[in-house]
Amino acid sequence: MQLTDLRTPCVLVDRVRLERNIDRMQAAADARKVRLRPHAKTHKSPDIARVQTGRGAVGICCAKLGEAEVFARAGLADIRLPYPLHFSNADRLLALQDLAMLSFIVDDLEVARGWSSALHAAGSRVDVLVKVDVGFHRCGIDPDAEGAAALVARVAELPGLRFRGLLSHAGHAYGATSEHETAAMAATERRLLTTLAERVRALGVEVEEISVGSTPTARFSLQQDDITELRPGNYVYYDRTQVALGSATWDDCALTVLARVVSRPAPDRVILDSGSKTLTNDVARGSGETRGFGAVLEDLESTAPDPALVIERLSEEHANVRDSAGTRTLVPGDLVRIVPNHSCVVSNLVDRVYVVDGMRVEDELDVEARGRIT
Amino acid sequence: MQLTDLRTPCVLVDRVRLERNIDRMQAAADARKVRLRPHAKTHKSPDIARVQTGRGAVGICCAKLGEAEVFARAGLADIRLPYPLHFSNADRLLALQDLAMLSFIVDDLEVARGWSSALHAAGSRVDVLVKVDVGFHRCGIDPDAEGAAALVARVAELPGLRFRGLLSHAGHAYGATSEHETAAMAATERRLLTTLAERVRALGVEVEEISVGSTPTARFSLQQDDITELRPGNYVYYDRTQVALGSATWDDCALTVLARVVSRPAPDRVILDSGSKTLTNDVARGSGETRGFGAVLEDLESTAPDPALVIERLSEEHANVRDSAGTRTLVPGDLVRIVPNHSCVVSNLVDRVYVVDGMRVEDELDVEARGRIT
Repeated sequence: MQLTDLRTPCVLVDRVRLERNIDRMQAAADARKVRLRPHAKTHKSPDIARVQTGRGAVGICCAKLGEAEVFARAGLADIRLPYPLHFSNADRLLALQDLAMLSFIVDDLEVARGWSSALHAAGSRVDVLVKVDVGFHRCGIDPDAEGAAALVARVAELPGLRFRGLLSHAGHAYGATSEHETAAMAATERRLLTTLAERVRALGVEVEEISVGSTPTARFSLQQDDITELRPGNYVYYDRTQVALGSATWDDCALTVLARVVSRPAPDRVILDSGSKTLTNDVARGSGETRGFGAVLEDLESTAPDPALVIERLSEEHANVRDSAGTRTLVPGDLVRIVPNHSCVVSNLVDRVYVVDGMRVEDELDVEARGRIT
Repeated sequence: MQLTDLRTPCVLVDRVRLERNIDRMQAAADARKVRLRPHAKTHKSPDIARVQTGRGAVGICCAKLGEAEVFARAGLADIRLPYPLHFSNADRLLALQDLAMLSFIVDDLEVARGWSSALHAAGSRVDVLVKVDVGFHRCGIDPDAEGAAALVARVAELPGLRFRGLLSHAGHAYGATSEHETAAMAATERRLLTTLAERVRALGVEVEEISVGSTPTARFSLQQDDITELRPGNYVYYDRTQVALGSATWDDCALTVLARVVSRPAPDRVILDSGSKTLTNDVARGSGETRGFGAVLEDLESTAPDPALVIERLSEEHANVRDSAGTRTLVPGDLVRIVPNHSCVVSNLVDRVYVVDGMRVEDELDVEARGRIT
């Protein structure tokens, strides 16, 4: 089967690039003796997770227990949830423990106590890390706060929990406007984590793990000492944002959307069948040319965007593309290939992706953990 | 079962408001003797579509053949696709004809010819309308163009197609900044359609249908003569955008997201478990207060937003809420209810919604046509 035989729109994954991305990140982590634990949210596929662990990843990450349930049932044996799970989900976590080694994070002493009670009462003990805010200002304890080390120490002594270390996510690196800024964010992250770890150790508490994870900072975190674990997710597919952030080249982008021209109502306007139900309204981050809702490639076999085509607007089932050059004569029925702004959210919208090699469709892959939001 | 028993995040549909919204739009259409043909993209549920047809809707609309396949197999007998389908899908349309009466739109003579050949060769004849651009500048022919009426007449004489009339979507009404502007858009829409219809009739072609459809313009279109069909979709649920556009009140909003506080890392910052995988990054349209990714209600039983809480930022599984007043002491584990910016895209993210009456959970409803993008 060829690309041209597929119903559109649909999501394509280039197998060669996918495997190259997996191998390259694994090799970089191995060279530094850092444990790689990819976040599975990007692909949501146990098949791809098994490729990652097969090449050396120590396990995977999931955001929610619903995702962990899918991966644990598919045989993934070591699953970390870098998410501030609430203890009202203790029954679900306990039910999964027979299938996989689980760990999660806390950033609140009351929540940690709730987990401690529930797990201890069930005769269980689960690995836990304390989430540290290193500048993204989402979850996490403030590492500069006076009581930060004491809070970690109190978590570490709770029954039912086995304290493993500190964990952070430099999500603010998606707002970096230069490589220099991204590098500085990774350096600050390391400093905040190691400084807090030393304060915790001074209280007599062992800190075995320093876990960081974000694709834009990964290459800089790998140049630093003291990091024990890396948790990038997006690197399997990359996307337009990662190219704009300098994490990848266009040739690394393994996930694309295949779309069809359905209307050509004006010389400068092309309408595609890929709307926000396929591409999402996520905007591109990073520097340089980031207008529009994805980059339309020059042709089906190219990896280079056509600068004349800008996806200006999405409806749910339509993309309005401005064709400023008019050098391409796209007409209804023609196919185009798009690198989306954000690949993780695109794979969450489809039940399956098509694995391709060049123009050939090799396989279909179920996005088994799609939509597992709880 | 009560709301408080549900895993979060999840999508709630208030049954009383849903039925009231359906009844009110049906009554308004009936009073004007306009045929109501709701767009099913908002709910994607055959069960809700059957409520709509049971109350008097003449049929439904679907955007893509994949949606039509779900609704036709569920027994919906009259399905219109106001989408510029490409004739490479002729096999799928022909296969559905045994199950339902289908119709679709064209806005391109070459595409119409492609459909004509495919349908005529199969011994079939399918209802078709010509899509007219009334200002949204997405699909549709330019009604002011010199050859517009002649193009419609040429479509009308193609074998395999049964020309029914003209169809438009005033999607630009989502950009209106006042009721007056919305009313003017509806008036322009009617004028463009009826003027073109007269020109087509002058060529000896019958124009039986003048079909318009968008929830913001619906109440104004219903005050006009010559409209034969109304195709609103969003009115079943409404959302924050419709309130900002004056199409609905907060008390009409039937779809809400139930979310849980998972972290409270700072006095002014609350983190919820409903990220872009639940709320989407769609922004609110309309005038007034439209900052943020949804309106957090005062409490679980209120329909009024809490002005102190702004959903400033979404990650895939987190919402960053700024609590400017600090008057509510939300802590991890607490539940909140959110009116999303755009209800259609929210229901597309979940496999099921929970039908509620007040705090009581009455039923689960599968979103059967979720993710049918082809």
